[in-house]
Formats: sequence, C-alpha cells, structure tokens
Amino acid sequence: MRHAAKVSLVGAGPGDPDLLTVKAHRLIHAADLLLHDDLVSPEILALANSNAEVANVGKRCGKKGITQAEINARMIQAARQERHVVRLHGGDPAIFGRLAEETDALDAAGVAFEVVPGVSAGSAAAAALGLSLTDRRKSSSVMIVSGHHATKNAPYAATDWKEVASDNATLVVYMPGNNFQPLRDELLLAGLSPDIPAVIVSRASTPQQRHETATLGTLASLPRMDSPTVLLMGRGLDRLTKHGRQSASAALEQAELIFSSIE
Amino acid sequence: MRHAAKVSLVGAGPGDPDLLTVKAHRLIHAADLLLHDDLVSPEILALANSNAEVANVGKRCGKKGITQAEINARMIQAARQERHVVRLHGGDPAIFGRLAEETDALDAAGVAFEVVPGVSAGSAAAAALGLSLTDRRKSSSVMIVSGHHATKNAPYAATDWKEVASDNATLVVYMPGNNFQPLRDELLLAGLSPDIPAVIVSRASTPQQRHETATLGTLASLPRMDSPTVLLMGRGLDRLTKHGRQSASAALEQAELIFSSIE
Repeated sequence: MRHAAKVSLVGAGPGDPDLLTVKAHRLIHAADLLLHDDLVSPEILALANSNAEVANVGKRCGKKGITQAEINARMIQAARQERHVVRLHGGDPAIFGRLAEETDALDAAGVAFEVVPGVSAGSAAAAALGLSLTDRRKSSSVMIVSGHHATKNAPYAATDWKEVASDNATLVVYMPGNNFQPLRDELLLAGLSPDIPAVIVSRASTPQQRHETATLGTLASLPRMDSPTVLLMGRGLDRLTKHGRQSASAALEQAELIFSSIE
Repeated sequence: MRHAAKVSLVGAGPGDPDLLTVKAHRLIHAADLLLHDDLVSPEILALANSNAEVANVGKRCGKKGITQAEINARMIQAARQERHVVRLHGGDPAIFGRLAEETDALDAAGVAFEVVPGVSAGSAAAAALGLSLTDRRKSSSVMIVSGHHATKNAPYAATDWKEVASDNATLVVYMPGNNFQPLRDELLLAGLSPDIPAVIVSRASTPQQRHETATLGTLASLPRMDSPTVLLMGRGLDRLTKHGRQSASAALEQAELIFSSIE
C-alpha cells in the first residue's frame, strides 16, 4: 500500500541558512510537520511556515529523548494523514544521519519519500577556512569517520586507525569529542608523522564559528570547543601553516608569468 | 597588496539547479566573470546575468585546454580589474576540484577570496537512490577516492586498496572510468567479499540520471555510462538488494508497534 503523501528527508547543511539548497529552502517553508535534529540552527527553523508543526527530535548524548523508532513512527503517521513531512538533518542526511534507518521504516510502511542532499559539515568546515580536502599534490583521498564512540569506554572503538591512517589522505572526524589524546596516540602508533597539520572547527558557517589549529603531535592540547565540531587532518591542510604559504609563492610566480603573457 | 575585489570559489552541486545553495544561486547571478568546469550544467549557467562573461575552463581528459596556471592568472587579472569573479566547480570545490591550487595562487597574489561549499557528487548520488553513506548497523565510515588515474597506465595507481578496503566502510569513487576489472581484482585480493553491493550513478540529480547495480564480484559487467559518474560500494547500500528489503521489515514492525502506542 503506497500513499500519495510524501516524506522529504532533507539536509539542512552546516547552519548558515545561505548554505541550504534552494530545494531545502522551499521544502522547509512548505512543510506541515518539520522534524529536526538538535543541530539545525534557529535561523533555519525560522523559515518554516507559521502553520507548521515544528518538533525537535534530536538525540543529545546522555539525554533521554525520542527514539529512532519513535521518529520513524511519527513520520509514517503524519504521512498517512496526508501531511507533508520534512525530516531535517544537520549537514547531509547520508553522512552520520541515521538516514538508512528512516528509509528502511518508510520503505516497509509503503510511504513514498525523497532524499534531498545537503552540504556536509566536513565540506563546510573546509570551505570556512579556505581549505581543500583533496590536493593532487598531497592528498588523494578523504576518509570520513565518526568520533562519536569517544564518549563510550573505548575511544574511537569503531575505527581501526592502523587500517585507515595514511599520509596521503585527509581525515575528517565528525563528532570528535574533546579528548584527542587516544586519537593522537593511535595515529602516531599507526606510523603517521607528528607534523601533519590538523584543525578543529566549531560551529562552521555560523556567526559563532571558531577554529584552532594544531598538528597530529600537539592534537591533545586542543581546547574544548562548542559543538558541533569537526576535526580535519592531513598534508593537504598546510595552507594553515607557514610552510603552506611558502609553497604558495611558487603558484604565484607561475600565475604572474602567464598573467604577463595574456596582457 | 590586498585588493577589495573578491573571487568566490563556489560549489555548483551535482547539476540540478535546485541543489545549488542559496548563496551559490545569488553569486552566480551577481558574477561579472563566471569561470566554470565542464561538468556544470547549462541550467545553472543560464542563471548568470546577461552582462556576465561566462567561460568554460574545464579540462576534459585527453583534450588540450586551459591550464590550471592560466585559470589562476585569469582570476587574479579580473579581480585586479575590480570584477567579481565566480569560479564555479562541479559538486563541492573541496573534493577533487583543484581548489588548493587556486587558493594558493590567490593567497600569493594577495587577492581576497571566499569558498562556498556545495553538495558533493557522492552525496547527490546517494540521495538520488535513497541511500545513506553511513549506517550505524553496517557502515561506520566513508572513503572518498578518485578513479581518475584509471585512464593512465596503472589503473587506480593513486590508491593502495589493501590499505583502504574495509567491510565496514562505504567506498565512493569519483571519476571511476569505465573499466572496473582492476578495481574488482584489487578489492577481492584485499579480502573484501564479492557480495558487497555496488552501484554506479550517471549524471545524478539531472533528468538524464541513470544507475546500474552490481556487487563487487560482478563489478566488471557494469555497462559504460555517461559521465559524470560516481561509484558507490558498501554493506550499507543493501537497500538496493532484496536482502535490504527484508531487513526493512524489522524496522516497520518496530515502527508499527510504537505507532499503535502513540494512537
């Protein structure tokens, strides 16, 4: 049994309403029921229609709240009442958003849905600092992991760092927590160099955005910052450092050469 | 010497103008000079102001064209003429966009710039098929690599698959080319199971979108498809398969249980 009503599973991007997609912007305004994560900014929620029901279904660490099954049930129920449901995920719904659990439930219930991708937190953090996550000169891949398990007994238990650590990859850690000592130790043990540049970005794209730079070796000295935070690490991030500015001079020389040949 | 004129390095998303960010949409319309990749869709270029100069600076494989240094020089030159330059990258500029080379040159020339992130091709391909790239039940990380080197002598030379292959990660291959035999062989040799689901998505988010599903074992039988394509592979993609639909029934049972308790 398939219903005409639709659920839109929508990426809200990193926080700045300007970084919503055109489609997300329209859907948020059109929603009858807006179910949103904790991390979706007030400026974005303010775009909802005044007749819409807006509910925070976020699950903050350590707080009792609505379960995933309850979120699923609420979406299905509203869709069966012919209401347009917009389930608003922070960033991109396909990256650490529990999207799969929601689409499984909607599939099984025969409720039609669409997924609208968003700007992910890692892309936003990089852009905010003018950084690229890949660089054909230094970094040929991007590894996106979650540090969520850092709050459990075994820090970063979900990832075997010896498998993923690579001098040639940019590491993007979502929800990295505040204790970077275990990550530092694991990555050094995996053979990475202590001078690899790193940066933690707090509340990327919002007026409260802050960042702190470090290297793998000094990672444990990073201060506690307001969530959401994203940790970026890799050779390609050396624009953050003096070395990066020196290598930029070579690019200018080449550009000036061609510039003068154009004139 | 720092100029007031600004260069905006902007992600154009996967192709659908509806998946531009609100900011990208505004900047494209406001640009004096729009320098764009091959992969940016005509529908998006049509948003440019009628007075704007629009130039394709894409570098198609095997075609002689403008060099990166020439692109850099052109941006610097226009910015110094107080023109507003929008450098439009397909997808997200931080992922396989040569963004770092452009920011190095702008930095060195003292030209102010901003980076506007976009929806990346991998996120768009996943969303188009209702897939999540992570799934806490099956896939705890995302590995983004480029298959660009597949066109050179050594297929996928840039990546050591034995290092990155993991049953617990979703692999996203940008520019995967058409010959999947070497990738299949490498990943099987690295110990991955031949039944891992895979899908190739062509021209995600556009009216020409197509996709073909396979498994790691049958990867080499995938047909040639129009570029741009993205290859997704991982346990979390089993929504594509019958097995995934069966596991969805469990999610429905749970949802129905809670649904009845809400009523």
